Amino acid sequence: MRRILGIDPGSRRTGYGIIDVSGNNLSPVAWGVISTDASDSFPDRLLRIHDKLSEVIRLHKPTEAAVENVFLAKNAASALKLGQARGAAIVTCRSHGVPVHEYSAKEIKTAATGYGAAPKEQVGGMVCRLLGIREGVPPDASDALAMAFCRAVTRDIGKQ
Amino acid sequence: MRRILGIDPGSRRTGYGIIDVSGNNLSPVAWGVISTDASDSFPDRLLRIHDKLSEVIRLHKPTEAAVENVFLAKNAASALKLGQARGAAIVTCRSHGVPVHEYSAKEIKTAATGYGAAPKEQVGGMVCRLLGIREGVPPDASDALAMAFCRAVTRDIGKQ
Repeated sequence: MRRILGIDPGSRRTGYGIIDVSGNNLSPVAWGVISTDASDSFPDRLLRIHDKLSEVIRLHKPTEAAVENVFLAKNAASALKLGQARGAAIVTCRSHGVPVHEYSAKEIKTAATGYGAAPKEQVGGMVCRLLGIREGVPPDASDALAMAFCRAVTRDIGKQ
Repeated sequence: MRRILGIDPGSRRTGYGIIDVSGNNLSPVAWGVISTDASDSFPDRLLRIHDKLSEVIRLHKPTEAAVENVFLAKNAASALKLGQARGAAIVTCRSHGVPVHEYSAKEIKTAATGYGAAPKEQVGGMVCRLLGIREGVPPDASDALAMAFCRAVTRDIGKQ
Protein backbone atom coordinates (compact mmCIF):
# COMPACT_ATOMS: atom_id res chain seq x y z
CA MET A 1 0.00 0.00 0.00
CA ARG A 2 1.15 3.52 -0.77
CA ARG A 3 0.80 6.29 1.77
CA ILE A 4 1.27 9.78 0.32
CA LEU A 5 2.16 12.89 2.28
CA GLY A 6 1.17 16.17 0.62
CA ILE A 7 2.87 19.30 1.93
CA ASP A 8 1.99 22.95 1.38
CA PRO A 9 5.01 24.75 2.90
CA GLY A 10 4.96 28.30 4.20
CA SER A 11 7.05 30.25 6.69
CA ARG A 12 3.96 30.99 8.81
CA ARG A 13 1.79 27.95 8.15
CA THR A 14 2.76 24.62 6.61
CA GLY A 15 -0.18 22.39 5.73
CA TYR A 16 0.12 18.62 5.49
CA GLY A 17 -2.29 15.90 4.43
CA ILE A 18 -1.87 12.15 4.20
CA ILE A 19 -3.77 9.77 1.91
CA ASP A 20 -3.67 5.98 1.69
CA VAL A 21 -3.85 4.48 -1.79
CA SER A 22 -4.90 0.87 -2.19
CA GLY A 23 -5.78 -0.05 -5.76
CA ASN A 24 -8.43 2.47 -6.80
CA ASN A 25 -9.34 3.23 -3.23
CA LEU A 26 -8.14 6.49 -1.69
CA SER A 27 -8.68 7.20 1.98
CA PRO A 28 -7.65 10.16 4.12
CA VAL A 29 -5.36 9.33 7.05
CA ALA A 30 -4.48 12.60 8.74
CA TRP A 31 -4.09 16.30 8.07
CA GLY A 32 -3.10 19.42 9.92
CA VAL A 33 -1.27 22.70 9.93
CA ILE A 34 2.14 23.45 11.47
CA SER A 35 2.14 27.06 12.66
CA THR A 36 5.30 28.94 13.46
CA ASP A 37 5.68 31.78 15.90
CA ALA A 38 6.43 35.09 14.16
CA SER A 39 8.35 36.22 17.25
CA ASP A 40 10.85 33.36 16.79
CA SER A 41 13.97 33.81 14.67
CA PHE A 42 13.69 32.55 11.13
CA PRO A 43 16.09 29.61 11.76
CA ASP A 44 13.91 28.60 14.74
CA ARG A 45 10.78 28.75 12.58
CA LEU A 46 12.47 26.46 10.04
CA LEU A 47 13.48 24.13 12.88
CA ARG A 48 9.86 23.99 14.04
CA ILE A 49 8.72 22.98 10.53
CA HIS A 50 11.46 20.31 10.53
CA ASP A 51 10.61 18.97 14.00
CA LYS A 52 6.82 18.83 13.54
CA LEU A 53 7.08 17.36 10.06
CA SER A 54 9.55 14.77 11.39
CA GLU A 55 6.95 13.80 14.02
CA VAL A 56 4.29 13.43 11.32
CA ILE A 57 6.64 11.26 9.24
CA ARG A 58 7.64 9.06 12.18
CA LEU A 59 4.00 8.64 13.24
CA HIS A 60 2.40 7.96 9.86
CA LYS A 61 5.35 6.56 7.86
CA PRO A 62 4.45 7.90 4.39
CA THR A 63 6.01 6.05 1.45
CA GLU A 64 6.26 9.18 -0.71
CA ALA A 65 5.61 12.91 -0.62
CA ALA A 66 4.22 15.53 -3.01
CA VAL A 67 4.74 19.29 -3.06
CA GLU A 68 3.66 21.99 -5.43
CA ASN A 69 6.40 23.19 -7.74
CA VAL A 70 6.26 26.95 -7.26
CA PHE A 71 7.87 29.20 -9.85
CA LEU A 72 6.22 32.49 -9.06
CA ALA A 73 5.88 34.60 -5.97
CA LYS A 74 4.67 38.12 -5.25
CA ASN A 75 8.21 39.41 -4.99
CA ALA A 76 11.77 38.33 -4.26
CA ALA A 77 11.40 38.80 -0.49
CA SER A 78 8.34 36.55 -0.22
CA ALA A 79 9.96 34.08 -2.64
CA LEU A 80 12.97 33.83 -0.32
CA LYS A 81 10.75 33.13 2.71
CA LEU A 82 8.64 30.60 0.85
CA GLY A 83 11.75 29.00 -0.63
CA GLN A 84 13.33 28.53 2.79
CA ALA A 85 10.20 26.90 4.21
CA ARG A 86 9.99 24.71 1.12
CA GLY A 87 13.67 23.75 1.37
CA ALA A 88 13.24 22.87 5.05
CA ALA A 89 10.18 20.70 4.32
CA ILE A 90 11.76 18.90 1.35
CA VAL A 91 15.02 18.17 3.15
CA THR A 92 13.09 16.85 6.15
CA CYS A 93 11.28 14.33 3.93
CA ARG A 94 14.41 13.33 2.02
CA SER A 95 16.51 12.95 5.16
CA HIS A 96 13.85 10.50 6.45
CA GLY A 97 14.17 8.55 3.19
CA VAL A 98 10.83 9.75 1.81
CA PRO A 99 11.04 10.54 -1.94
CA VAL A 100 9.58 13.94 -2.89
CA HIS A 101 7.68 14.53 -6.12
CA GLU A 102 6.85 17.95 -7.50
CA TYR A 103 3.68 18.89 -9.36
CA SER A 104 2.70 22.19 -10.91
CA ALA A 105 -0.40 24.09 -9.71
CA LYS A 106 -2.00 23.23 -13.05
CA GLU A 107 -1.39 19.48 -12.60
CA ILE A 108 -2.82 19.61 -9.06
CA LYS A 109 -5.91 21.55 -10.16
CA THR A 110 -6.48 19.27 -13.12
CA ALA A 111 -6.21 16.14 -10.98
CA ALA A 112 -8.77 17.47 -8.49
CA THR A 113 -11.27 19.30 -10.70
CA GLY A 114 -10.48 18.40 -14.29
CA TYR A 115 -9.73 22.07 -14.94
CA GLY A 116 -6.19 23.43 -14.76
CA ALA A 117 -7.29 27.01 -14.07
CA ALA A 118 -9.82 26.21 -11.34
CA PRO A 119 -9.93 28.74 -8.48
CA LYS A 120 -7.69 27.76 -5.56
CA GLU A 121 -10.61 27.44 -3.08
CA GLN A 122 -12.44 25.01 -5.36
CA VAL A 123 -9.50 22.59 -5.43
CA GLY A 124 -9.12 21.81 -1.72
CA GLY A 125 -12.91 21.64 -1.27
CA MET A 126 -13.27 19.21 -4.16
CA VAL A 127 -10.48 16.95 -2.87
CA CYS A 128 -12.06 16.82 0.62
CA ARG A 129 -15.40 15.88 -1.01
CA LEU A 130 -13.74 13.18 -3.15
CA LEU A 131 -12.06 11.78 -0.03
CA GLY A 132 -15.34 11.80 1.91
CA ILE A 133 -14.06 14.21 4.57
CA ARG A 134 -17.05 15.90 6.20
CA GLU A 135 -15.27 17.95 8.83
CA GLY A 136 -13.97 21.43 8.14
CA VAL A 137 -10.37 21.18 6.96
CA PRO A 138 -8.15 24.29 7.26
CA PRO A 139 -7.22 25.68 3.81
CA ASP A 140 -3.47 24.94 4.16
CA ALA A 141 -4.28 21.32 5.03
CA SER A 142 -6.79 20.88 2.18
CA ASP A 143 -4.23 22.30 -0.26
CA ALA A 144 -1.76 19.70 1.04
CA LEU A 145 -4.37 16.93 0.64
CA ALA A 146 -4.84 18.13 -2.97
CA MET A 147 -1.09 17.65 -3.59
CA ALA A 148 -1.23 14.12 -2.15
CA PHE A 149 -4.35 13.46 -4.24
CA CYS A 150 -2.59 14.65 -7.40
CA ARG A 151 0.33 12.32 -6.72
CA ALA A 152 -2.09 9.43 -6.05
CA VAL A 153 -3.98 9.74 -9.32
CA THR A 154 -1.24 10.91 -11.70
CA ARG A 155 1.59 8.63 -10.62
CA ASP A 156 1.42 6.45 -13.69
CA ILE A 157 1.05 9.18 -16.27
CA GLY A 158 2.92 12.04 -14.59
CA LYS A 159 6.62 12.59 -14.33
CA GLN A 160 8.27 10.40 -11.74
CA MET B 1 36.62 27.35 22.65
CA ARG B 2 34.18 28.46 20.01
CA ARG B 3 34.18 26.91 16.57
CA ILE B 4 32.15 28.84 14.00
CA LEU B 5 30.76 27.42 10.77
CA GLY B 6 30.04 30.03 8.08
CA ILE B 7 27.76 28.93 5.25
CA ASP B 8 27.12 30.57 1.88
CA PRO B 9 24.18 28.53 0.54
CA GLY B 10 23.32 28.16 -3.13
CA SER B 11 21.41 25.60 -5.16
CA ARG B 12 24.49 24.93 -7.33
CA ARG B 13 27.34 25.62 -4.92
CA THR B 14 27.23 25.92 -1.14
CA GLY B 15 30.40 27.25 0.42
CA TYR B 16 31.42 26.51 3.98
CA GLY B 17 34.25 27.73 6.17
CA ILE B 18 35.14 26.95 9.77
CA ILE B 19 37.09 29.17 12.18
CA ASP B 20 38.26 28.49 15.72
CA VAL B 21 38.04 31.38 18.18
CA SER B 22 40.18 31.29 21.30
CA GLY B 23 40.34 34.65 23.05
CA ASN B 24 41.56 37.12 20.42
CA ASN B 25 43.05 34.36 18.35
CA LEU B 26 41.22 33.26 15.19
CA SER B 27 42.42 30.27 13.20
CA PRO B 28 41.01 28.62 10.09
CA VAL B 29 40.03 24.97 10.48
CA ALA B 30 38.52 23.86 7.18
CA TRP B 31 36.70 25.15 4.15
CA GLY B 32 35.19 23.83 0.98
CA VAL B 33 32.38 23.91 -1.55
CA ILE B 34 29.47 21.47 -1.82
CA SER B 35 28.50 21.20 -5.49
CA THR B 36 25.21 19.77 -6.63
CA ASP B 37 24.51 18.05 -9.91
CA ALA B 38 22.22 20.12 -12.15
CA SER B 39 20.89 16.89 -13.69
CA ASP B 40 19.55 15.78 -10.28
CA SER B 41 16.03 16.69 -9.20
CA PHE B 42 15.79 19.74 -6.96
CA PRO B 43 14.85 17.66 -3.88
CA ASP B 44 17.93 15.47 -4.49
CA ARG B 45 20.12 18.57 -4.74
CA LEU B 46 18.75 19.78 -1.39
CA LEU B 47 19.42 16.33 0.07
CA ARG B 48 23.01 16.52 -1.13
CA ILE B 49 23.47 19.88 0.63
CA HIS B 50 21.95 18.31 3.76
CA ASP B 51 24.09 15.17 3.63
CA LYS B 52 27.41 16.89 2.90
CA LEU B 53 26.80 19.64 5.46
CA SER B 54 25.84 16.97 8.02
CA GLU B 55 29.21 15.27 7.36
CA VAL B 56 31.03 18.60 7.89
CA ILE B 57 29.12 19.16 11.15
CA ARG B 58 29.78 15.64 12.44
CA LEU B 59 33.47 15.87 11.52
CA HIS B 60 34.27 19.36 12.84
CA LYS B 61 31.58 19.81 15.53
CA PRO B 62 31.01 23.58 15.21
CA THR B 63 29.49 25.28 18.26
CA GLU B 64 27.60 27.86 16.20
CA ALA B 65 26.88 28.84 12.60
CA ALA B 66 26.58 32.10 10.65
CA VAL B 67 24.78 32.80 7.38
CA GLU B 68 24.17 35.95 5.41
CA ASN B 69 20.69 37.34 5.78
CA VAL B 70 19.63 37.81 2.18
CA PHE B 71 16.73 40.11 1.38
CA LEU B 72 17.27 40.71 -2.28
CA ALA B 73 17.60 38.48 -5.29
CA LYS B 74 17.67 39.03 -9.03
CA ASN B 75 14.09 37.83 -9.39
CA ALA B 76 11.46 35.67 -7.71
CA ALA B 77 12.62 32.48 -9.47
CA SER B 78 16.23 32.81 -8.30
CA ALA B 79 15.01 33.88 -4.84
CA LEU B 80 13.00 30.66 -4.59
CA LYS B 81 16.03 28.54 -5.51
CA LEU B 82 18.33 30.41 -3.15
CA GLY B 83 15.70 30.30 -0.41
CA GLN B 84 15.36 26.53 -0.69
CA ALA B 85 19.13 25.97 -0.48
CA ARG B 86 19.28 28.37 2.47
CA GLY B 87 16.35 26.63 4.21
CA ALA B 88 18.00 23.24 3.70
CA ALA B 89 21.33 24.49 5.11
CA ILE B 90 19.78 26.23 8.13
CA VAL B 91 17.57 23.28 9.05
CA THR B 92 20.56 20.94 8.77
CA CYS B 93 22.49 23.04 11.31
CA ARG B 94 19.53 23.45 13.66
CA SER B 95 18.61 19.76 13.53
CA HIS B 96 22.18 18.98 14.63
CA GLY B 97 21.74 21.37 17.55
CA VAL B 98 23.95 24.09 16.05
CA PRO B 99 22.50 27.60 16.59
CA VAL B 100 22.35 29.75 13.45
CA HIS B 101 23.00 33.50 13.47
CA GLU B 102 22.19 35.80 10.60
CA TYR B 103 24.23 38.83 9.52
CA SER B 104 23.55 41.33 6.77
CA ALA B 105 25.96 41.75 3.85
CA LYS B 106 26.83 45.17 5.30
CA GLU B 107 27.73 43.69 8.69
CA ILE B 108 29.89 41.01 7.06
CA LYS B 109 31.69 43.54 4.85
CA THR B 110 32.24 45.93 7.75
CA ALA B 111 33.66 43.17 9.94
CA ALA B 112 36.15 42.11 7.26
CA THR B 113 37.16 45.41 5.68
CA GLY B 114 35.83 48.21 7.88
CA TYR B 115 33.71 49.37 4.94
CA GLY B 116 30.06 48.24 4.56
CA ALA B 117 29.97 48.83 0.82
CA ALA B 118 33.23 47.03 -0.01
CA PRO B 119 33.21 45.07 -3.28
CA LYS B 120 32.33 41.40 -2.75
CA GLU B 121 35.71 40.11 -4.04
CA GLN B 122 37.61 42.28 -1.57
CA VAL B 123 35.80 40.74 1.43
CA GLY B 124 36.70 37.07 1.02
CA GLY B 125 40.28 37.97 0.05
CA MET B 126 40.69 40.17 3.11
CA VAL B 127 39.34 37.50 5.45
CA CYS B 128 41.71 34.87 4.04
CA ARG B 129 44.60 37.32 4.56
CA LEU B 130 43.51 38.07 8.14
CA LEU B 131 43.30 34.33 8.82
CA GLY B 132 46.73 33.74 7.31
CA ILE B 133 45.47 31.40 4.59
CA ARG B 134 47.99 31.37 1.73
CA GLU B 135 46.36 28.80 -0.52
CA GLY B 136 43.78 29.77 -3.11
CA VAL B 137 40.32 29.49 -1.57
CA PRO B 138 37.32 29.13 -3.91
CA PRO B 139 35.09 32.24 -3.81
CA ASP B 140 32.07 30.44 -2.26
CA ALA B 141 34.29 29.12 0.53
CA SER B 142 35.96 32.50 1.20
CA ASP B 143 32.50 34.12 1.39
CA ALA B 144 31.56 31.48 3.97
CA LEU B 145 34.79 32.17 5.91
CA ALA B 146 33.83 35.86 5.89
CA MET B 147 30.47 34.99 7.51
CA ALA B 148 32.21 32.93 10.21
CA PHE B 149 34.70 35.78 10.67
CA CYS B 150 31.88 38.30 11.08
CA ARG B 151 30.25 36.13 13.75
CA ALA B 152 33.61 35.71 15.52
CA VAL B 153 34.35 39.43 15.80
CA THR B 154 30.86 40.90 16.22
CA ARG B 155 29.40 38.45 18.70
CA ASP B 156 29.51 40.85 21.61
CA ILE B 157 28.19 43.89 19.84
CA GLY B 158 25.99 42.31 17.17
CA LYS B 159 22.49 40.94 17.57
CA GLN B 160 22.47 37.50 19.16
